[in-house]
Amino acid sequence: MLGFGSIRIGAIGYSRDAMFTPRTIGRVRSPYQDTKEIPKGLGAKHEADGDLEILPEYAAGLKDIEGFSHLFVIWCFDRSDGFDLAAKPPSDNREHGVFATRSPRRPNPIGLTVVELLGREGPRLRVRGLDMLDGTPILDIKPYLSSVPPEKLRRGWLAEAEARQANGAS
Amino acid sequence: MLGFGSIRIGAIGYSRDAMFTPRTIGRVRSPYQDTKEIPKGLGAKHEADGDLEILPEYAAGLKDIEGFSHLFVIWCFDRSDGFDLAAKPPSDNREHGVFATRSPRRPNPIGLTVVELLGREGPRLRVRGLDMLDGTPILDIKPYLSSVPPEKLRRGWLAEAEARQANGAS
Repeated sequence: MLGFGSIRIGAIGYSRDAMFTPRTIGRVRSPYQDTKEIPKGLGAKHEADGDLEILPEYAAGLKDIEGFSHLFVIWCFDRSDGFDLAAKPPSDNREHGVFATRSPRRPNPIGLTVVELLGREGPRLRVRGLDMLDGTPILDIKPYLSSVPPEKLRRGWLAEAEARQANGAS
Repeated sequence: MLGFGSIRIGAIGYSRDAMFTPRTIGRVRSPYQDTKEIPKGLGAKHEADGDLEILPEYAAGLKDIEGFSHLFVIWCFDRSDGFDLAAKPPSDNREHGVFATRSPRRPNPIGLTVVELLGREGPRLRVRGLDMLDGTPILDIKPYLSSVPPEKLRRGWLAEAEARQANGAS
């Protein structure tokens, strides 16, 4: 068994802080040129349409993706620099740990968005539900396969912030 | 507007293939020592309990996480080497594009798992639903906030493979 914090030395010499070198597999084409344009905060809906443009050298990896209605898109916050362990999200006036928020200023600047797949034209996926800036580098796409039943889902501080706002408190 | 494939040069000199250097924020403690032990294929259920052990220097980022019932865990396939654009998953005998599968051999070896949060002891999150090997490096944790309604979800080749198997065909 690996000890906690142990470093696995493999054929290509992994070390703790250089597990792999992220590659851009494509770019997001979204209507958002500036973070100020992206709906944020309580009740924000991400319904923007746009494209995931996959680079020609990775396009073969899309085979059969059109059968899925929803996709996970894993991407890079490439216009974020550095991180904070505490974050004050737009949906609350209190600080929370960064891992309890979707702040872009994370130890690994990785974003995750569930999109609805509307259609495909070759290496271009037409999708709905974008919350990324135009030009955002895509790291990975995975099929979205299952949902957590709504009755089992708890939404933590976000539900509390919503309740406070509904009551007119702050 | 950024041109497709353009390279944004920021203060710390991003290039297309070196967006950021992944950091380990913690390790998965799971019962699985070998990939052979992880349930795979059609109908596989991931119900293994284990821990997400966050490194002391990142533990402050967990504040208020205990209010969420489910979390996204983003992690590194650190025992996978290289990638294929076509993958034959354990749940089917046909090849699909890697982005339409959960194959570990991906251009960016990033894994994604939704876990149920059972409890927290300091920097240690007790969770259910692991499908990672013991010692797997964790890259990020995010709150799981919403579900796709089951009636809107299509599961592509996986549903077809299940139907073929149920019919006794191959």
